[in-house]
Formats: sequence, C-alpha cells, structure tokens
Amino acid sequence: MLPLSDDFAREMPHEECGIVGVYNHPEAAKLAYLGLYALQHRGQESAGIVSSDGERLYSHKAAGLVADVFNEKNLATLQGDCAIGHVRYSTTGSSISANAQPILANYKGGTLSLAHNGNITNADELRAELEERGAIFQTTTDTEILVHMIAQAGARNFDEALFLSLMRLKGAYSLVVLRPDGLLALKDPRGFRPLCLGKLGDGYVVASESCAFDIMNAQYLRELTPGEVIAFRGGAARSSKPFPAADQSFCIFEYIYFSRPDSMALTRSVAELRTRLGAQLAEEQPADADIVIAVPDSSTSAAIGYSQQSGIPYAIGLVRSHYVGRTFIEPDQNIRDFGARVKYNPVRSVLQDKRVVVVDDSIVRGTTSRKIVNLLRSAGAREIHFRVSAPPWKNPCYFGIDTPEPSKLIGATARDNDEIRKFVGADTLGFISVEGLQKVMPKTQGYCMACFTGEYPDGQRPSGEFTKDILESGKRHG
Amino acid sequence: MLPLSDDFAREMPHEECGIVGVYNHPEAAKLAYLGLYALQHRGQESAGIVSSDGERLYSHKAAGLVADVFNEKNLATLQGDCAIGHVRYSTTGSSISANAQPILANYKGGTLSLAHNGNITNADELRAELEERGAIFQTTTDTEILVHMIAQAGARNFDEALFLSLMRLKGAYSLVVLRPDGLLALKDPRGFRPLCLGKLGDGYVVASESCAFDIMNAQYLRELTPGEVIAFRGGAARSSKPFPAADQSFCIFEYIYFSRPDSMALTRSVAELRTRLGAQLAEEQPADADIVIAVPDSSTSAAIGYSQQSGIPYAIGLVRSHYVGRTFIEPDQNIRDFGARVKYNPVRSVLQDKRVVVVDDSIVRGTTSRKIVNLLRSAGAREIHFRVSAPPWKNPCYFGIDTPEPSKLIGATARDNDEIRKFVGADTLGFISVEGLQKVMPKTQGYCMACFTGEYPDGQRPSGEFTKDILESGKRHG
Amino acid sequence: MLPLSDDFAREMPHEECGIVGVYNHPEAAKLAYLGLYALQHRGQESAGIVSSDGERLYSHKAAGLVADVFNEKNLATLQGDCAIGHVRYSTTGSSISANAQPILANYKGGTLSLAHNGNITNADELRAELEERGAIFQTTTDTEILVHMIAQAGARNFDEALFLSLMRLKGAYSLVVLRPDGLLALKDPRGFRPLCLGKLGDGYVVASESCAFDIMNAQYLRELTPGEVIAFRGGAARSSKPFPAADQSFCIFEYIYFSRPDSMALTRSVAELRTRLGAQLAEEQPADADIVIAVPDSSTSAAIGYSQQSGIPYAIGLVRSHYVGRTFIEPDQNIRDFGARVKYNPVRSVLQDKRVVVVDDSIVRGTTSRKIVNLLRSAGAREIHFRVSAPPWKNPCYFGIDTPEPSKLIGATARDNDEIRKFVGADTLGFISVEGLQKVMPKTQGYCMACFTGEYPDGQRPSGEFTKDILESGKRHG
Amino acid sequence: MLPLSDDFAREMPHEECGIVGVYNHPEAAKLAYLGLYALQHRGQESAGIVSSDGERLYSHKAAGLVADVFNEKNLATLQGDCAIGHVRYSTTGSSISANAQPILANYKGGTLSLAHNGNITNADELRAELEERGAIFQTTTDTEILVHMIAQAGARNFDEALFLSLMRLKGAYSLVVLRPDGLLALKDPRGFRPLCLGKLGDGYVVASESCAFDIMNAQYLRELTPGEVIAFRGGAARSSKPFPAADQSFCIFEYIYFSRPDSMALTRSVAELRTRLGAQLAEEQPADADIVIAVPDSSTSAAIGYSQQSGIPYAIGLVRSHYVGRTFIEPDQNIRDFGARVKYNPVRSVLQDKRVVVVDDSIVRGTTSRKIVNLLRSAGAREIHFRVSAPPWKNPCYFGIDTPEPSKLIGATARDNDEIRKFVGADTLGFISVEGLQKVMPKTQGYCMACFTGEYPDGQRPSGEFTKDILESGKRHG
Repeated sequence: MLPLSDDFAREMPHEECGIVGVYNHPEAAKLAYLGLYALQHRGQESAGIVSSDGERLYSHKAAGLVADVFNEKNLATLQGDCAIGHVRYSTTGSSISANAQPILANYKGGTLSLAHNGNITNADELRAELEERGAIFQTTTDTEILVHMIAQAGARNFDEALFLSLMRLKGAYSLVVLRPDGLLALKDPRGFRPLCLGKLGDGYVVASESCAFDIMNAQYLRELTPGEVIAFRGGAARSSKPFPAADQSFCIFEYIYFSRPDSMALTRSVAELRTRLGAQLAEEQPADADIVIAVPDSSTSAAIGYSQQSGIPYAIGLVRSHYVGRTFIEPDQNIRDFGARVKYNPVRSVLQDKRVVVVDDSIVRGTTSRKIVNLLRSAGAREIHFRVSAPPWKNPCYFGIDTPEPSKLIGATARDNDEIRKFVGADTLGFISVEGLQKVMPKTQGYCMACFTGEYPDGQRPSGEFTKDILESGKRHG
Repeated sequence: MLPLSDDFAREMPHEECGIVGVYNHPEAAKLAYLGLYALQHRGQESAGIVSSDGERLYSHKAAGLVADVFNEKNLATLQGDCAIGHVRYSTTGSSISANAQPILANYKGGTLSLAHNGNITNADELRAELEERGAIFQTTTDTEILVHMIAQAGARNFDEALFLSLMRLKGAYSLVVLRPDGLLALKDPRGFRPLCLGKLGDGYVVASESCAFDIMNAQYLRELTPGEVIAFRGGAARSSKPFPAADQSFCIFEYIYFSRPDSMALTRSVAELRTRLGAQLAEEQPADADIVIAVPDSSTSAAIGYSQQSGIPYAIGLVRSHYVGRTFIEPDQNIRDFGARVKYNPVRSVLQDKRVVVVDDSIVRGTTSRKIVNLLRSAGAREIHFRVSAPPWKNPCYFGIDTPEPSKLIGATARDNDEIRKFVGADTLGFISVEGLQKVMPKTQGYCMACFTGEYPDGQRPSGEFTKDILESGKRHG
Repeated sequence: MLPLSDDFAREMPHEECGIVGVYNHPEAAKLAYLGLYALQHRGQESAGIVSSDGERLYSHKAAGLVADVFNEKNLATLQGDCAIGHVRYSTTGSSISANAQPILANYKGGTLSLAHNGNITNADELRAELEERGAIFQTTTDTEILVHMIAQAGARNFDEALFLSLMRLKGAYSLVVLRPDGLLALKDPRGFRPLCLGKLGDGYVVASESCAFDIMNAQYLRELTPGEVIAFRGGAARSSKPFPAADQSFCIFEYIYFSRPDSMALTRSVAELRTRLGAQLAEEQPADADIVIAVPDSSTSAAIGYSQQSGIPYAIGLVRSHYVGRTFIEPDQNIRDFGARVKYNPVRSVLQDKRVVVVDDSIVRGTTSRKIVNLLRSAGAREIHFRVSAPPWKNPCYFGIDTPEPSKLIGATARDNDEIRKFVGADTLGFISVEGLQKVMPKTQGYCMACFTGEYPDGQRPSGEFTKDILESGKRHG
Repeated sequence: MLPLSDDFAREMPHEECGIVGVYNHPEAAKLAYLGLYALQHRGQESAGIVSSDGERLYSHKAAGLVADVFNEKNLATLQGDCAIGHVRYSTTGSSISANAQPILANYKGGTLSLAHNGNITNADELRAELEERGAIFQTTTDTEILVHMIAQAGARNFDEALFLSLMRLKGAYSLVVLRPDGLLALKDPRGFRPLCLGKLGDGYVVASESCAFDIMNAQYLRELTPGEVIAFRGGAARSSKPFPAADQSFCIFEYIYFSRPDSMALTRSVAELRTRLGAQLAEEQPADADIVIAVPDSSTSAAIGYSQQSGIPYAIGLVRSHYVGRTFIEPDQNIRDFGARVKYNPVRSVLQDKRVVVVDDSIVRGTTSRKIVNLLRSAGAREIHFRVSAPPWKNPCYFGIDTPEPSKLIGATARDNDEIRKFVGADTLGFISVEGLQKVMPKTQGYCMACFTGEYPDGQRPSGEFTKDILESGKRHG
C-alpha cells in the first residue's frame, strides 16, 4: 500500500505550516476553518484551531486533513469571536498528534495559545538552556520552546515577556498568538515567511496566504512588514515594530513553488509572477521545440509564460489525477513508474513524435524529474527539453522548508548541469539563472535565495547539522 | 453542511457509468481496480468488481469512491484471472447500494455478471413485459432488465440468449459480461457510448476510456466499432458483429466534456480535439479582449485553443480547489457565492481591469455560469466575454447522460442567446456552431448530437417522459 | 488478527435471523430499530429496515451491528407508520451485503418487502423450478425464492399469491411482509421458529422474541400459533389459519440456548425454564463437588438451577469479557488457549483446589468445552464435573439453525459419552436426558427435538446434503 | 442521540486509570496492549502505550477503546522489550487527546515516560509553585506535575530526582515510569491504589489488577506493598522502600465496585470477597422475600452471597444488554425510563408477584436505583427490598475516584436511610454497616474508607473544593 501523498511529496520540498487568525467575528472558528481549508496545501498532516471567548480558550486539533479533522459538532465547541488555526506538515509518523498545533498551555501568566510557521535556527541551543533550567518538552516543535521562554521570562506583562523571548530567537517565524484578552500576529525581523492582513466585517483576519481571505470573502489589505507586530485588542488593531531594523529576506520559494497561484505576491498574484519566471526562462534557455508542456499543477503558469515568450504552443501533455492523496494499492507485478503513473498521465497524441519543452518549477533530488522524462518518452516524445523555473537547488533551508540532506540535492552533488541532464534523461536541460530570477522578482522587497546561492541572511547558518534532525533524532526519544 | 460534489454537479450533465474488463491476467481484480480509479470521473457514487477464477464468481461492491470501496483485504477475495468493474453515478440516495454494479445473478444457465454504461430507451416497456411474465426487480437499473431477458430467452446457449435479448434493446449500451467461461465486451449497434480495447501481457483489457489502460501500463489498440462483440474465451479474443448494420452515433459530449483529456478520441487525444474546438470557437466568436481564461479543469484545452487561434494571451484566472469533493461546513452568515467560491478562486491581479474571455465547455442551466461571471466581476474583470465550446444545449439525452428536464435547460427555454447572456451577466456570449463542431470532429465516425440538434438517431426518442423518472418515481417503491 | 466473534461463534450453533414488525405507530422505523437492537443476539452480520408510508416503501440495510447500521439520518429517511426489520447471521463473507434483509422487490403486483427467520427445506427444488421458468437470483436467501413464487403465482390478489406460494414451502418460516397497504406476520404450520405479538399504543408489534417489546415499552400479548397469519390492515389486526392443521414443532433450542433469558417462553421466561433445566440436570446427573459454576452468560440460569437443586453453592468461576466482538491482535509467541482466554477468565481463588461442577448449555464440536476445561484446570480446579443442560447433539438442523456438518458434531461421532468426556478432558460428564428435557418443557406446545433425537417432524429431512451448502457452494457463484 | 456509556456512567463513581508495565519481553507492546484490554473497565476514554528499545522511546496514544486505538500497524511501531500502558477515564470532552497518557517528555536528564493511577491532593499547590518557577502546563493531569518536579529537582541522578519529587506529593499514586535504561513501578506510602507484580518468561509485568496477567498468561506474584518501589533494570527487579513508614490505606472501593471479579484481592479473588460482603449484608439486613436478584454485572457476587446466607433463592431478574456502550437513538415520543431500559431488562415471569431482594453495590446519587426500582415494579414485583453491599456514600474521594459533588451524594444529603428509601421507592432499604464491611475485609492490610466514614487518612482532605474542579475550571482554559 503506497500513500500517494508521500510518494512524490518526498521528492518536493515541504512547507512546515500554514497559519490563520480571526479577530472579532461571531463565527471566528468557522472562518478559521475556511482559512485552513484554503491553506491545506501548506500542510496535510494535522490541523487545529484554538478559539477564545474572552475568558477561556477552546481547542480542537488532530491528525488529518482540515475537512476530516473538523465537523459541525467540534466546530460548535470552539466558542468565541477570536480564533487561530494551523495546518502542519511534518516528517515523523509517531509524533503526528503530539506535534499538532496550535499549542495550548497554562503558565503563571494565564493561558496562551500559539501557532507558528517557520524554523528557529538556534532552537537547539535555546532548548538546551531551557532544559537546564528545568523545562520539560512534550513536542519537538519550536513553538513549545517559545512558550517556555515566555513562561520563564520574568517580565512585567505578557507583551514584555513575548518580546524579550522573541529577541532571543534566530531564524524564521510568522506567528499568531491567542490569549483571552486578544490576538497578536507577527513576523520575524527579516520577514522570511509570509503573513498577510485582511479585513472582514468589524474584525480582522491574518493568514499565511491571501487565498485564505478569498474563501471567507474578506478583503486583502497587505503583507505584514518584516518585524511587524499587530496587536488585536479591544476591537482595534495596533501595529508596532519592536525589533531592530534588518534586511528583508522573504522566502523566494514561496513564489516559485509553495504558495497557491491565486495568492498575492505583494501587488501581483503568484500566478502572474510565475508566468514572468517562465518568460524569463524562455529568454535565457530557449529550445527548438514543437510544444511547451507543464508538470501540473504548480508549473502551469511558468509553462504558459515560456510558451508566450518563445511562441512555441502550449499544450496539455501531462494530466494530473484529481484523486491522488489517498492510499493506493499496487499490483504485485510492479508496474513501471507506478507512483508517477498514478499521479500523472502523459497524453500520447499530444506528445507523439514531438519535440517537447517540459517546464517544472524545481529539481530537488532529480528522481521525480527522471520518472516524468520516462513517462514522456514512453508516450512517444521525440526530444525532451527540460526547463526549470528556479535555479539549481544547492543548499539546505534553515528557515522553514523541509529539505533533504545536501547529499541528496542533485543540484549540490552533480558536477555540472550536464550531469543532472544525464541523470534526468533529458535531451537538454536549462535552469533560470539567479540573475534572471532577481530580475523578475518585485524590487520592493528583499529575498532569501540561500537555497540557490548559499548566501544565508546574516550568515545565520547553524554550525552543526540540520536543526530538525538534531532535535528529533539526537534527543527526542531517548 | 453542503456536499460539494453535489453542488456544482447538479449543474453539469452526468455520465452514468464507467466500465472496465480484464481478461487473462493473474491480478485481474487489482488491474480492474486501477482501471476504475482512472475512470473515477465517470461515476463517484458506487464502485464494484466481480472476478472469476473459471469456476466461481467473486463480488465486492459498495457505495463510495474506488479508493474507499476497495482495500488489500477485499481485493484479495476477488480471485481469478478475469474481472469486470463498474463505477456509477446516479441521482437517488436510497438506492445507492442496491443499484451498485456489476450485477451478479444466478439463473438456469449458471452464474452471470454484467456491468453497463448507457441507457435503454425501451426499458419501461421491457420491464413491464418481464413483470407480466413473473419477473421481480430488486434494482432500478437497466442492467437487471437485461439479465431477466437472458434468463427468459429460452435459447440454446448463453451467446444466443444474450443476442436474442440484445436485439430487443433500444438505446445505448456498452457492456462487459463475465461468466465462468469467459468475458464479453460489446457495444450497441450505433455505438453511442465509448468502449476501447487494449492489450496487457498475455491478456486483454477493455475500458470506457483509454486512460484506464495507461495506469495499468496496457497498450491501447482501438475503439470497439458499433455493434461489435468481442468474446474473450480460451485465451483468445474473437470479434463478431451480430447486429444489423446501423449508422454510428457516438456521443459528442464524451469529447466535449466527459472524457478525460488524456483519453483517446479515435486517433487523437480528447485534449487535442478540445484545443481544436477552442480554436474553431475563436474563429466563429472572436472577442476584443486582453486575456483568455478557462473554467478549470475540463475547459482548459478549449481555452488554450482559443488563445492560440486568437492570439490573446492565455492566463490562469480561476484556480480550482484540489480538495473539493468532501462535505463542507458553511458559516451561518452566508458568504456570497459560497459554493462557487469553495470550488473556484478568481485571481484578482490577473483579472483586475482586464477584458476577459472566459471559455467554458457547456451551459446547462446557466446558474453556474452566472456565479462564475459574478466571481470574475468581483475580482475586478472589466469586461467578460463568455465563450462556450459547445452549441446551446436544447434537448434532453436518452442515451446515458443524466440531464435536467428540458424546462431547466436554459438553451431550450431562452428566447435567444441574448437572453442567456443577460441571465449569465456577461458582456458578450458566443457558442460554437453545430457546423463548426462538425467541422472539427474526426470524419471517420458518426456522432449523436441530438442534445444540440434534436435529431435523435432513428428517431429513438421515447414517446413519454424521461425513462429514468418513469422507472423511479412511477413504479419503484410503491 | 482474530475476529473474536467468529472464534467461539464457530463452535456454537447459530440462529439465522431475528425479525420485527411495527404497525400503525408514528415512529415505526425507530421502534423497529429498538426491536432489532434487542434482537441483536440473533444475528450480528447485517441489519435492515423497510418502512411504508402507505404509498411507497423506504429501505436501509447494511452489513454490521444495529447500532452501526442505523443513525438519526438514515432512520429519518424511513418514513411512514409501518416498518419491518431484520438482523441476520450468516456464514459467507462475500455475500454479506447482497443477502441482507428485508428483501425489497417490484413485481407486477406492486412493491413488496419480506423478512424471514427459518429455513426452507425444499428451497433447492423450488429454486431450480423457478430458474427453469426464467427467474434470476441475486441472493442465496430463501426469502428471494418466496418473492419469485409470489410474482409467478398468477393469483387474483396478493393474499392468494402469498398463500399459494406458502403452501408449496416446506420447513421453517416466521415471516413479516410489508406492502403499501399493510403488514402481515405469519408462522409456518408447524411453528418451528418463534414470533410473538404485542400491543403498542394504537398499533401492534411483532418480534422473534418478547425482549424486543420490553425496550419499546410495548405490551406482550402472546406467541403466534403454528400456521397463524395475522394481517394488519386498515388499523386492525385479523388472524386467520389458512394452512391445514399440523403438529407443533417449536424449536427446543430457542429455549435452551438462543433466546434471551428475559424473553418469554410461553407463559414463563426463558430464564426460568433454564433454571428448571439446571435443576433437572442436577437430579439426573448429580456430582460430588464444592461449587457449581456456569459458562457465562447463556448457561448462568441452568447453573443456578443446578446449584439450587443440588445444594452445592453457586460461584462465579469464569468471568466473561464485555469487550469481546472486536478484532483482536494476538502476540506472535502464541499464548495458550488465547481465543478462550480473551473471552473467559477463570477466577483462580474460586477454583483453586475445588471440585467444580461446570454447567454449559450444549456441546457442539467439543473444542470449546475442551478449552474451558483447560482454563479451569490451569486455574487450579481439582476435579471438573462437566454438566450439560441439553442432551448430546447428534443431528443437523434443517429448520433455521446453522449447524456444523454431522461429522463435526462430537455427539454424533463419539462412540459414547465417555469418549466425549475424554476429549473434553473432564473428570465426569453428564447430559440432561431427552426425557428430562421433555419433563421440564411446558406441555402446552409441541417441540422439534430432532437435533437430539433424529426424529424430524414429518420426516422433513432433505434427501441430500445440507440445503445451505448446496445453495452456496454448488450453485451460486459458478 | 444518547451516548449510553455516559448515561449510567454518570451515576456511578469512576476510576481514573488503569496502568500496566512489561519488562524484558520481546513483544512488550503487544503484551501491554493485552493488559490494557483486560483493564478496559478502568477507563474507556483514551488508551496509550510507550515502549523502549533501550535507546529510544516510542509512543502511541489516542482517544477511544483499546481495541480501537491499537492495530497491527501502530503496535509494530512500538519497538523494544519494555513498555508501559494506560487507560483513562475522564470527564471533560475537549481535553480527551491532550490528557491521554502515558505522558512522554524530554528534559535535561533525557527522555521519560509516566503513567499514573491516583490523585495528588496537593496538586494545586505544587502546580502553582511550578508555574511560579516558569513551568508551562499542556494538560490538566497530575502526571505532568510530577514530570516538571523531576525536571526541576536538581538531583544527581534520575532516581534521586524521582524520590525527591515523590516526597513532596500528597495523595494517591500508583505509577509506572519508563526510561531507556529501565522501568520503575511504585506505590505511594499509603498504597491507596492497587498495583500488582507478575512474572512472564524472563521478564516481569505489573498492572493495576491481576486480570491483566491472566490474559497474557503471566504468573501473579503479589500486590506491591505501600511505598514500595520496584526498579527493573539490567534484567533484574530490585525492590526498595524509600518512603517513611505509613499506615496502609487501600481503597475499599476497588474491592466493592471497581476491580474485575476475577482480579486478586490479596490472597482471594474480588468475586469471593464480594460474595462474603453479600453474606454479611444478609446477616445484617435480612429480608422476608421470595427471591434475591442482582443489578448485573458488578453486584452479582454480592447477590449470590446474600442468597447463600439467607437461603432465599437467587434468580436472574434483570438482564443486561451486551451491546451497551454505543450511542443510541431514542424515539421522539419518549419511552419511560428509556436509559435504564436499554441497559437492563426486567424478567417479568421471574419478578411477577414476587417479594424481591435486589442487591446493588452502591448508591451514589440514587437516581439509577430509583429507575431500577421502577423497572422492577413495572415488571410485577410485589415488594422490593433494596440491599446495598456498601455503606452509604457520604464523602467525596480525593484519592483517584471521580465522585459527584457532595451535594449530589444522596448518602450525604438524605436525613436518614428512610429518606433514601423513599427517594428510591423501595419497600425496605438496607446497607451493610462499616463494621460489617471491616469484618469481611482481610485483616492483613489497612483500608481507606473515607467515602463512608469521612476519616481521611492523615486528614489529607484538601482545604478547598475538589482538586479536579479547581484545575480544570479555575485555571485551565483562561
């Protein structure tokens, strides 16, 4: 039995979370649920909502998809007009339920709930320090570290405790914080991960992506700025910037791959940006071909852009199954490239004897790309020109994307692009350049492109191995 | 609680079935399961497989999606190297399990299993006649009628009994029949519904669409011809044409809407054909616009064709949710166009201030089109030019498509296209012409276009009302 | 994984059905559901209810326990003030859903639903005859045979068709029949299987056992007499006896084992009768012992009777798990007598060094008895005196109890009781005598004791093998 | 929809937990699972197992019954030859999953898992103190408090940290503690709650009740003594008694009500002890009656004892449904005493015109007793002599039993027994006396009978309200 979502999933980088917050709306939990549904692509492992009626907090979270975790009955228990929510992707099986967010805890300052998207790069060090002072850890999440820091901060009030704690965090964090007296939404000083603000009736909403607002029929206002903290209390929203100024390092991969095409990338849509990336790719890496096809669905915009720029007609050469995501029983007599075949079906009559440009949005390990090339060849494609709307991925991410070890990144291990081409089995292979990428991206903000360039913001590369691995295998269960 | 699949589903015409057959393969049931998975779009209500080990037949069927109905355990009980399978869409709630196919029955000639795609137009009359002779009916399916006819045929052998019975059927039927001694696949004399033949190892496969072969890695051979009967027995396949010759009437709507784009339409793919329809539409119904967008996913090829022919850039203006199909909880304070919003999200930055050509593959009642126009306008589209890659739908289908009553077909009730345009709320509206459609379709076969033209093949329009309605409400339970 | 219900279940004889009918009550389906819940012990495989609103019939049935098959939602669809229901036990896996009752069918006379408890001994012959006349069979149930007979009866009206058909049936049948115009409840002329009549408000209820009335708070009136037909129509109940008179042959095993202790056995409770059986057993088969224990729960009354008659104190020596019935995972390193151990736990301090009389209500294959003796010895019992409140089971049942082949009945195969005793491992073994049994049973009715005596009523023993086996293995699927 | 388990459950006192530990067995987790299955009656809300392979700990826990929470797949992930397990009953809905045990945590001393049965009476104070020092609480369980104390103990090694922490606990705790280097089992100095030791192959097992050993086929050795700590490390078991000596206060209610009859009460079985209680009750509270019946199943032994002592015949007057525990749909037209009727059915022919002694093991609120008396009267009982094998319950429990507020204990609020009798509706009412109870109980240990006498061991009655209430409503969520 092969869980399809895991099959290809392994191949692609993973976002760890999507978060949402609803302030001052009579159906706060239901709206948070709608928002999480729209953010489902950011995490399929667990989902949770904590709501507040001004006195108590109410929680429901479990492993599974948003539509499975929540129902009329448990949504009804999530009382009050404020709520925060979270969807999570993670890698370990056993910790699914324990690590589900939002985290909910009592401490001397009262009750507190947090949901987090990002990765704290000095988590290991902070955790050790907290343990030294007697803290116990029941999850492997960074979020629990922050709650401990707040509880031990010895501050005069909650806001002070929170900011004293945040000052010590390194890395990426977009956060929503719920207490009986209100809701806070904030971004780390470099603004690695997205978080945007919207308006709904008399209240406000925040979410990792603006597509969450569309389903609620909320109005998109803007992206939070790096280091911005918005406190929703007493019916009003107040913005502050308590952190020292820092260069912005918005994750470029949000635009290239993670975000839904209908979400906003600053003033444009992600779909529009990707179309431009495809056009730039066509300029840099032309091909003599008959058709341009996409690896659906995330590369579709880039493929359209490539087609428009190059004048080579766009066609549907791979059809994606709509029912993927369930476990799937494979015959004993293995079917060649079964995992790929269940997900994608090549359209023979479109591909037969054609010189094909296939546009994908990234190559991580290269094995998926190889299977796709196989499928296309088996469907009769004469030439395959593989084009990638991102530069080669050479470096691990420490800011919230779950990447394979560097030794498994074909961009890092291959001697040159021709070695990648051979592995993948394409006739030609071309990546967009880092310069080309920069040229396309809106200049109004700064980006983290460390995965491509190795230039980590502030040199925030942890000294040792992956933070995630350290926490989980080195310490956790034994 | 709003079952999403029903929401929009109501709006679009429905196929009643997908069928599959596997002959002479050690994992027949597992392959049938794969095939049904690929045909899932043809019926989401129930799924079933009956297998044969040469002596007995084994059955499992239930309400639900293929991936939910079958698991390792029940697939293991479906022994033998032959199998037939069925996915079903139907309208009535209570009859879900009773009407699941394949039907399995004992009669004096032994054991018999059938799976059927189509609609028998003289079912009512045959049923009455059979009841008069003492038959009891436990389902409302046409398939049960055929089994009764075979059992009462008084023929010398099974083949004779089958053909004597088929001779009396009017309407559309693509069938797979399983008995311990082999498998039969056949089409009615006019070949209304699709059924294609493939080769897999030492055996054969048949399926409603060729995409079922791709997932099994079977080789597509050809579409069955009208009236063709292929008997798979003793390791071999033998084709015969026992029916009197008749004009072919292949359902045009298979190409326009039902079939997966990666399935074969004769020698071309459905995707390719739809692209040509889009191009033809652009020629007939040009528009002065900035972008062409599709109502995803079934209209995507046509929109690409429109774009290529017109030179207007193709863009992604509506994003479709991947998680639709589950029940969905709506806030009490209704969200405008919630049902549409959950399924489609307009991309504001793509649409804003644009003159938009939106291509859809059909207008049935018009209400979905209206909601889509609403969504597009709310996202800032300046002008909306609605283009439809099918002619106006004016007449009900009696050959296997579940259509609304004529009084609910806006193509039938509107005085003219402008009335439809007003209802839908578009700035301009254009349909492809019947002539344009004919021009694009391959000339090597004949089509049934009665839904557009009212010219029913052989005038096979039942005298009374809808067969389906008659059977279910008039007689069934009471 | 070991399905517990099957483990011991195999060992004990099985009833095939429980039936219930509710006439003229505004919540007919809900009451039928309550009744089925009380009759759950008579069949755990599937459950179903068909209701009538006077015009149409509504059906819901599925594999599973009553509490799992029905919920608020599907009960709400079962409209009307009449309903019949059925719980079923059967042996074959694949046919679970197909064979679920009540059966619902259309025929020229309209719509008809039936639920049946019993076994038709000439089913094979009738089925062959019906098939010869063109009938198709979609289940392996006797009930379907009767529906076909009614449909082919060529009678002037339904009642005539029904009685003409019943006249031809041999064997055991207690039936409830629902049509839009009313409900019928009836017993075969010998009255093999139970069916009792109750009063509830303005309406009536019938059920296999009176415990079904208690949960509805209905009033028990009486057992139907052999051959009695009660027609509930137009608000009234009318009894008739259309069959020729015959001797009563009420199944003795209903009293010994099947029925719930709180059900009525004529004017007494089953519990009371079993207590008397235990007392009679003590008289016939005394033992020199310290304590009397039961194999819970069905033998508890008999053990109490044994204790009271013998003066040997009754104790709880075996405790039965309340959670049996779910699948259960066994360690790889097998635990001795695991299946028995999961179901029964011996109470060491009660048994240690004691001379124990253990009372059970039957020995079928002997393997369960052997495991129980093992458990008791392992818990320290010094002597084990096995006493059985039924005579040795020597002959198969053809009237509705699912018995093993005679070759597996230790009562039939053992040379004498001492051979059984040795197999079981007891120090002494004693059965109640047939005469003792007769002495205890109420004289007001006649019994079928063929399982003990081999004297089948009217010599109705089918010439060949088991009817059930013939139908299922010989013909059904191939 | 009425969840049956809650219906009557509310009425009876609840144990909070059952615990189990397996040391040095290759299938440790599977055996823990069997043990939890046998302890299911001690907690039906959630179940969990943590195992150790000597390096890491592996965890699975979830809401639900043991048979539902565990399956082959998740048991297989619980590697290693040591394991601890827990079943939990609790009152709050929302906290089900968060509060499931065993708790698993990392702290500076490594990884640690605990499962707990009991109640810490100074939890409130300890929790406040820990929060003051910066601890965060993610559950409302006492167990989390202990983990925090260990983490903050500042001891040289784990054992020291554990004992320093335990020294500060007041109240009742039977604990199993798992670390990679071994397993500890211990009881608080007064030994309130049970915990027994067994031997299995080369390893050891501990469990709340000995019935857990029977299903594993392990050998019962003995009950742990008060304050005993057994450390299982390096293949051996070493017992120590680190606490100052204290009088034993074993919970009397374990014997009267909670424990399974087949578990050991010191050298006797619980069943045997209950039989003696029934006999003592008969001596103290005779009745002039025709039959003695029990409220099944927990009172059966006491009723048998009453019968044996009094000479009044024991009969089965109430039959308990085997399928209770699932949700159950009630007709809209309420059925009198429906909740009781679904659980118990009175046997009319046994009760009719009889003078009945009904033996129950406790009266808490009195409402269940009243319904039972109603049922018996409605079934024709002429006189009802209610006898209770426990003294009147007058005081809340602070040591691990979930009791209603004192204002809802009829034993505390009624002026005298006659007021209780009137409320219950019996003709006479009699409780066993505290002295009678003491006379029957084995003299080899001391008991806590505070629920009856108000004499709390060491006067350990918390000053304020219920600890449980304080934690949950006062602080937790807001």
